Amino acid sequence: MHASCKPFINVIRPSGHAMKLLIAPAAFKGSLTALQAAQAIEAGWTKVFARHQLTLFPFANGGEGTAALLTQQRQGTLHHYEVRDPLGRPVQAALGLVDNGQTAVIDVASASGLHCLQREQRDPIHASSYGTGQLIRHALDLGVGKIIVGLGDSATNEAGAGLFQALGGRLFDAHGNLLGDPCQGGNMLELAQVFHIDLSEFDPRIAKTRFELACDVSNPILGADGATRVYGPQKGVAEDQMPAFEAALTAVAAVLHRDLGIDVTRRAHSGAAGGIGAMLMVACRASAFPGASYVMEACGLEQKVAEADLILTGEGQSDQRSAQEKVPLLVLDLARRQRKQAIMLSGAIRDASNLMLSWPAASMFATLTENKAWEDMLASAGADLEMCAYNLARTLKMARELPL
Amino acid sequence: MHASCKPFINVIRPSGHAMKLLIAPAAFKGSLTALQAAQAIEAGWTKVFARHQLTLFPFANGGEGTAALLTQQRQGTLHHYEVRDPLGRPVQAALGLVDNGQTAVIDVASASGLHCLQREQRDPIHASSYGTGQLIRHALDLGVGKIIVGLGDSATNEAGAGLFQALGGRLFDAHGNLLGDPCQGGNMLELAQVFHIDLSEFDPRIAKTRFELACDVSNPILGADGATRVYGPQKGVAEDQMPAFEAALTAVAAVLHRDLGIDVTRRAHSGAAGGIGAMLMVACRASAFPGASYVMEACGLEQKVAEADLILTGEGQSDQRSAQEKVPLLVLDLARRQRKQAIMLSGAIRDASNLMLSWPAASMFATLTENKAWEDMLASAGADLEMCAYNLARTLKMARELPL
Repeated sequence: MHASCKPFINVIRPSGHAMKLLIAPAAFKGSLTALQAAQAIEAGWTKVFARHQLTLFPFANGGEGTAALLTQQRQGTLHHYEVRDPLGRPVQAALGLVDNGQTAVIDVASASGLHCLQREQRDPIHASSYGTGQLIRHALDLGVGKIIVGLGDSATNEAGAGLFQALGGRLFDAHGNLLGDPCQGGNMLELAQVFHIDLSEFDPRIAKTRFELACDVSNPILGADGATRVYGPQKGVAEDQMPAFEAALTAVAAVLHRDLGIDVTRRAHSGAAGGIGAMLMVACRASAFPGASYVMEACGLEQKVAEADLILTGEGQSDQRSAQEKVPLLVLDLARRQRKQAIMLSGAIRDASNLMLSWPAASMFATLTENKAWEDMLASAGADLEMCAYNLARTLKMARELPL
Repeated sequence: MHASCKPFINVIRPSGHAMKLLIAPAAFKGSLTALQAAQAIEAGWTKVFARHQLTLFPFANGGEGTAALLTQQRQGTLHHYEVRDPLGRPVQAALGLVDNGQTAVIDVASASGLHCLQREQRDPIHASSYGTGQLIRHALDLGVGKIIVGLGDSATNEAGAGLFQALGGRLFDAHGNLLGDPCQGGNMLELAQVFHIDLSEFDPRIAKTRFELACDVSNPILGADGATRVYGPQKGVAEDQMPAFEAALTAVAAVLHRDLGIDVTRRAHSGAAGGIGAMLMVACRASAFPGASYVMEACGLEQKVAEADLILTGEGQSDQRSAQEKVPLLVLDLARRQRKQAIMLSGAIRDASNLMLSWPAASMFATLTENKAWEDMLASAGADLEMCAYNLARTLKMARELPL
């Protein structure tokens, strides 16, 4: 007779059951790193559901946090090295070692990222990727066979010239003069004079190393959709400096083509991280990938979605803009394909009615609930996201009581 | 043996069970009437839950929709009469008959409300409550013993002078000249000349009729918190006209005191509906009540809350401002006292973190999800509220699938 009751017992889950929640937000650009966003959601959620099993997946797509995420998700170890920051000052940058020491994971943001600078320090004329080159050297010293480089959130717009020099590459002008080390006060606009590339002192281990790039954007290095035009402004490129920067990147791309035989100007991702994409593709024969998809695969996110009961994702501002891979949309799609429930929590949602009808989320919520000045939004982003998650969790908890 | 299973059977409710939802929003001031708000929520909800039993309670607290709500909730009948609108033009205004014809319910908004005018027609110098007086006359003609008047959303700032005249009252200046019918081109600022009130032709049935006022605000008629200063601007009173309007209302209040023996200047609600509160309190010996509480009681809202599984409320903008009765807070408190779950859906929520922690809602959501110009917010208010309710319903539906 108890047998006949069993189906019911299976259906009823005890209150406080350890539901599995996957928290996979992107960075809230300008206010929260992906990790901060995930932690804010966690903080709000656990105030309501203390026993849920939470998995934090701070979804980096090439930019800040990419090395840390891949290293953590693949059970590697993080190592820190003192290298040069974008302005040549010492900075501790991270390098992850995974696959039993066979693969290194770095991201350009760690040594050469915008986050290294105060807003008023943004200085694309002098900002160099030299420190990222030093990190690559450290990886080579560790004897890895493969280096994964996350491209995104760089403070630089110099086509990886600094990185190239750190690896032993040399750049000459038409008169045979060596272009100086940008971290010694060099001016990136002088790259417009570059005429010849010399690999005679380039680190020979690079040729034996496989490079994979996780790029947060697919833009090419030049043109109206290029690195300078689209991402220059957020790095401090003034409108009247655009032509000079474009000329510098054009010269580097031309020399890469002529001396090393590869034309990257039409390649997707060549404009990633201020053109570092282009340099790595040519000088290091790197393969470039869309960052979000790459990270998703490299971290086995599909499996984590499969193990979760509910997935939360989000970003600073959600809209229909479809030029780049949208992290939340990728997560939502992954959930949909596995018939998992997913909810989006974003800072703001533009044209929400259309988004709600077109994106595969069970529901979506904005942390913004009133008109706010930009600065106020950014200042309260963490607290607002925590409160939004708290509010959502309370809604779900309440739902248990309803005869829905 | 089946007996041992029964508890489980009782706990498990079939999917599609007819959950009872009470939808009790206030008006979204400037964009949606309470009825429009309730219907928008209904539209969003029923897209997700087709079988729920929805009760719409468009919570008017004295303003627009008060007569309709009370009449509907008390199973009365609505009657329409052609009377004068604030500018003297013909308008169809509503009068509800309830309690088997013993009680009439009207609101000043119906004949004398802001909604009767285009924004550019707002003209407090000429706007009169005459039409409301005509409605009261129609109520008296029906032989009722009690008249409930909702005060709120009036286009007028004339202390009910027009209403008084429509009921046969007369106003004279110090020289014994009759102040004219405001609907015949009268100027409300001339009320500053009023010196004597004459009730000789005042409708005698009024003395035998009980008047109850449901007031949407508690402000007094005069002073810094008075009708002119606080609500004049939304009716079109310009900053430089303030002293003249204040002088007009001051004169009326003084004459009411001297000739009829009642000083209303310190009474709560005397400033309701541009001072109509003061006039009705004195000339009709009306009793004034806070509108939301009055309507709540008059409609038996407590019982409706008791019958509901979930209560939704909301308003145009929610904030901590506590000067007046807040309809959503009243509904939330009512739900809390009965241990019912309640959720708030408002157009915008100011200082949401604090509100979420201090108001007794299970959760609260704003229809605003991005910074918007005021006009855009108003224009999309209905669609946004519907989408917000839809999104919430989807969240709750999804919750059924989760092992919460």
